[in-house]
Amino acid sequence: MRAETDVAGALRGLLRPDQVLDGPAQLDAYAHDDAEWAPYARPRAVVFAGSTDDVAAVVRAAAEHGIPVVARGAGTGLSGGANAVPGSIVISLERMTRLIEVDAAERYAVVEAGMINDEFRVAVAAHGLWYPPDPASYRISTLGGNAATNAGGICCVKYGVTRDYVLGMTVVLADGEIVRLGRRTAKGATGYDLTALMVGSEGTLGIITELTLKLLPLGGREERAVVGAFGSLEGAGAAVAAISAAGIIPSALELIDEMCLRAVDEWQHLGLPHGAAALLLATVDDVGAVGAAAAASIASLMTEAGALGIEQAAEPAEVDRLFLARRLAYPALERLGPVLTEDICVPRTAVPRMLGLIREVAARDDVVIATIAHAGDGNLHPLIIAPEGDEAAKARAKVAFDRIVEDCRMLGGTVTGEHGVGLLKLPGARVELGERVLAMHRDIKAALDPRDILNPGKAF
Amino acid sequence: MRAETDVAGALRGLLRPDQVLDGPAQLDAYAHDDAEWAPYARPRAVVFAGSTDDVAAVVRAAAEHGIPVVARGAGTGLSGGANAVPGSIVISLERMTRLIEVDAAERYAVVEAGMINDEFRVAVAAHGLWYPPDPASYRISTLGGNAATNAGGICCVKYGVTRDYVLGMTVVLADGEIVRLGRRTAKGATGYDLTALMVGSEGTLGIITELTLKLLPLGGREERAVVGAFGSLEGAGAAVAAISAAGIIPSALELIDEMCLRAVDEWQHLGLPHGAAALLLATVDDVGAVGAAAAASIASLMTEAGALGIEQAAEPAEVDRLFLARRLAYPALERLGPVLTEDICVPRTAVPRMLGLIREVAARDDVVIATIAHAGDGNLHPLIIAPEGDEAAKARAKVAFDRIVEDCRMLGGTVTGEHGVGLLKLPGARVELGERVLAMHRDIKAALDPRDILNPGKAF
Repeated sequence: MRAETDVAGALRGLLRPDQVLDGPAQLDAYAHDDAEWAPYARPRAVVFAGSTDDVAAVVRAAAEHGIPVVARGAGTGLSGGANAVPGSIVISLERMTRLIEVDAAERYAVVEAGMINDEFRVAVAAHGLWYPPDPASYRISTLGGNAATNAGGICCVKYGVTRDYVLGMTVVLADGEIVRLGRRTAKGATGYDLTALMVGSEGTLGIITELTLKLLPLGGREERAVVGAFGSLEGAGAAVAAISAAGIIPSALELIDEMCLRAVDEWQHLGLPHGAAALLLATVDDVGAVGAAAAASIASLMTEAGALGIEQAAEPAEVDRLFLARRLAYPALERLGPVLTEDICVPRTAVPRMLGLIREVAARDDVVIATIAHAGDGNLHPLIIAPEGDEAAKARAKVAFDRIVEDCRMLGGTVTGEHGVGLLKLPGARVELGERVLAMHRDIKAALDPRDILNPGKAF
Repeated sequence: MRAETDVAGALRGLLRPDQVLDGPAQLDAYAHDDAEWAPYARPRAVVFAGSTDDVAAVVRAAAEHGIPVVARGAGTGLSGGANAVPGSIVISLERMTRLIEVDAAERYAVVEAGMINDEFRVAVAAHGLWYPPDPASYRISTLGGNAATNAGGICCVKYGVTRDYVLGMTVVLADGEIVRLGRRTAKGATGYDLTALMVGSEGTLGIITELTLKLLPLGGREERAVVGAFGSLEGAGAAVAAISAAGIIPSALELIDEMCLRAVDEWQHLGLPHGAAALLLATVDDVGAVGAAAAASIASLMTEAGALGIEQAAEPAEVDRLFLARRLAYPALERLGPVLTEDICVPRTAVPRMLGLIREVAARDDVVIATIAHAGDGNLHPLIIAPEGDEAAKARAKVAFDRIVEDCRMLGGTVTGEHGVGLLKLPGARVELGERVLAMHRDIKAALDPRDILNPGKAF
């Protein structure tokens, strides 16, 4: 395989022919993830790995010739982490979907990286087990992509993020060698935590091909929902702070703002409250009297914080109905035009202040911004919308994006809560990390990938 | 400061004179942690850092002259991680005990690394907050030492280990530069997780001087204890497996074996059950009816697994009384002679098998071994006891130690569950990690500490 010539042909010599694509339309389909706003290039070839050995063979060949390699799951990333770089081979793991082992007694499972999050949840549920991490993309995103970006989700506020569930992994290193990191036991303190280092490293240190994931018992939870409509963002923010101060840990604490509410209602006519500046949606999942008491406390704290109205539910169907506006918010906004998705995380108490700053940015830069927030974590997704084909609006959206990142940093926040740095957050991440910590990143990257072939230019 | 000459004198020029020790007896007192079984050397000097800047100044000077530096908290480590290496400067952080900030709304605290775990717990409790990690040494060990070794404890089985609570840190790097890693927000995905890399790295990649620790609400827990006496280790093991399979997550699930029971009873005459091969001690901390139901389930699962007798308690004083034998086990065994403490972690279901193998090792190598176990995590502490001054018994103890590590590996376990590798577990860790993963450790170490001055020869 020579860098200048027929890379796809050479790859077909390593794999089965149907595992390699190089038609222009096919290459374009794999040129970027869900972050078209970030730069991307047409790759030289796309390969569909069927096994860890396939990944190793491709990386080994690429390493010999200094060809960059971009690993990719389902391509649902929102920061451009899986966008192809010039001259690269894209390795898709979407065909590596095997559930290798479920151990109900030890509560872990071993799975190939291309398995869809939701398919995994369903499969382990059959063993009485639960995999909590629930990024919004859970029906379509892969576990490997979730791990590479350290994906979050709605239940993080109580159950933590992907990193908290990764016990170990199989990784293909930059020279194509295969290693196993981590463990299968409940605890372990042997050597550096290279598993944690790989999680969130966006394919820049190795390609995760298998994961050993920690699971929880499936039962022992009862969901109750409390949804409050607020006349002001400050009121909703005060309710979030009061719930936290009361020592209640909800299993979800989401916020959607007026713009989201309007978009959903204009689309689906749900009869959502008019004149509400925000809807605050909480669930608790403690069983029995404890859960009922927590739900009642949340309702009264919302009332004290000035909620215009509150709805509660304990039946699963009713809980789903109350959360419908949250689930529909993103698709409702996508109807309005291409969405540039922000992902900032500020201290919980700074949520109302940050929401105010986002409104100021929208006004100043003349852009439409609707905000969905994992309010209980301080993790906000301002969705910046530019009408299709309006290049000037797109340019203004990018300016607004950077301003929001700056405001977040000023409030003591971090530039990405759960989507990863990819390409979109590189400028903000570099400021946040600072020169010396960036140098640590470069040193570690150079130590593990001296030829810089693994997803170069991403993550830091 | 020249490597050959008056290091202590040079250090007195950097710090206040009372921060530097170099009397032989003083040096010997800081030559090792609680792992005298591992090699150690008299250091050149001991310094008591009063601030991050002090640590930085000493490391900078040491780096210039290629002098190794060993960081140390309270010296309660059990693997030799803080044992002085030849020609080293020991930097003690025990005077860095300030609680810098507690944020009750965000539920985190910032603290200097030398603060004692228990003092921190008490201090944050005054703010209605709880710091779960509870290593057995929590009354005397420092938070910095806990982080450097990724210390575990009794409540890990439900609440996780130290790593799960470290949001960020201030670290002095190998050239004396100071960096801040991590974040204060609830979530964050910016850059590599260097915080997780530092936790458990035993001072080989940097010296942790401050920690930002995640906290939980203090309230919302009610402890109930269920203690069962078993005629066989197999019965106790079956109960552990049944509790896990039932989806119950206890807040503690401890086991002490017959040898421990006998040692405690001979010392304190508690009237512990005679003829019991093991005591299984569980707590649950769910509130109200849920907790009562979980305790009742544990009691009936213990009965089904063949418990000879069961005691239950819901009042705090009674819970403490039931756990007294567990708390007294280690001091009771230390009365019998120097203890070589093992720390292996096997799959939960392999606990009875591992206990059987430990008995075989004790018989074969003619050593006394008593076992305490965090059974719910599969984390066992076989305590190998050699009579004071009996060098032959000490030699046999070391042989037994290595055999237990081998048996653990054969059962799919890891060679250290919560104490760290230090020096004692180096041979086992090297086998467990394998050549290529060891090479990754060396590459990362060389990238961050190219002159190999930070605690050289430890951890991997």
